[in-house]
Amino acid sequence: MKLLLLSNSASTGARYLEHAVPLIGKTLSPGQQVVFIPFAGVVQSWDAYTDKVRDALSDLKLDIVGVHTLADPLAAIATADAVMVGGGNTFNLLRECRLRGLLKAIPAAVRNGAFYVGWSAGANLACPTIRTTNDMPIVDPGGLDALNLFPVQINPHFTNALPAGHQGETREQRIRELLALAPELEVIGLPEGNWIERHDDQAWAYGPHPTLLFKAGEPALTLAADYPLI
Amino acid sequence: MKLLLLSNSASTGARYLEHAVPLIGKTLSPGQQVVFIPFAGVVQSWDAYTDKVRDALSDLKLDIVGVHTLADPLAAIATADAVMVGGGNTFNLLRECRLRGLLKAIPAAVRNGAFYVGWSAGANLACPTIRTTNDMPIVDPGGLDALNLFPVQINPHFTNALPAGHQGETREQRIRELLALAPELEVIGLPEGNWIERHDDQAWAYGPHPTLLFKAGEPALTLAADYPLI
Repeated sequence: MKLLLLSNSASTGARYLEHAVPLIGKTLSPGQQVVFIPFAGVVQSWDAYTDKVRDALSDLKLDIVGVHTLADPLAAIATADAVMVGGGNTFNLLRECRLRGLLKAIPAAVRNGAFYVGWSAGANLACPTIRTTNDMPIVDPGGLDALNLFPVQINPHFTNALPAGHQGETREQRIRELLALAPELEVIGLPEGNWIERHDDQAWAYGPHPTLLFKAGEPALTLAADYPLI
Repeated sequence: MKLLLLSNSASTGARYLEHAVPLIGKTLSPGQQVVFIPFAGVVQSWDAYTDKVRDALSDLKLDIVGVHTLADPLAAIATADAVMVGGGNTFNLLRECRLRGLLKAIPAAVRNGAFYVGWSAGANLACPTIRTTNDMPIVDPGGLDALNLFPVQINPHFTNALPAGHQGETREQRIRELLALAPELEVIGLPEGNWIERHDDQAWAYGPHPTLLFKAGEPALTLAADYPLI
């Protein structure tokens, strides 16, 4: 099983998916088949979203198709070299995946060798649930359970900063609320620019910023570069 | 029907609920019965949360009981002078209210004359749904539908600022995602320090900061002081 889970699609001053291109290129070769899942997109069309990703990854010369355009999406996922899941609204992403039977099809394909790439909402979708999303619940996803390809909950776009003068909860406070209700969980705070790679039973976090691990009743742990995530 | 819906519980430099005390005191008198709903609290006990609210409102000399301590909460709500719903995690609040039958009991009491006071999550709960919460979905609320005492969706703690360098969605972008999926909705961006008062079929926003109204396909509207919200 091979996963690439990115916190975000573009950091300040960088092009869309710029930091993802070399990471994806380590695994995929020109001509390989990629099924793209655009359902987190709600203010752009799924066609436009797929085009945007195809453009961003054009140097890799992959064969990228939007899952929403396929007559038999489940068959295409089953034979794809990779499944890519884009960011946007996690609730809408989960709802559409559930309605279309992808919550079973994607894990089956990934366990069978397909490379899973997800950023932001797409990284959250790989977790057991979407209980660590930052997004607004714009639609009922029919349950919070997700793909369960990665056993630890990821909080993408992790930052503990608040806008000046703002009294809302910090991100850590939000995560602590989850751990108060579900102390058996662990949560990875994945800052923008960072990513996680899973190769079968091993996984590490990478990137320019410290990655944090939150456990109930313990202070946040800043992970060393070689910290095994699973 | 009388509602007081506050964006938040405490602004910078102010005591907990300090700005709410005179607003609540306009309607309630010493000795009146208040049922407090503490279910948005997840990192403090419901007893501690109730004590904190009782302390904050002590000058008003109200008789405040936590709904979780009552043998017959539905009967107490039906005869209360006021129902107060505190902030915290909106998903947990909605779930507990649903499980305990309060999603019917509270609206019935308020339509029968009980004063509804909610801040933050408690303001969101008064809306048709919690689709405009900023909170993390730490638990499945069993559906997003809420009390529907106020017909417009409120986004509490509204700010459009992001921490410096952060690439996540702004609050307006999140609200625009909702309006893309549900263009029939309107969303009030209620900044910290502001509140809404509803008296039967009339409602206005108050407070030191501009309140915004978002509609699909239109720029955000900064509301004049006398703008009728319903």
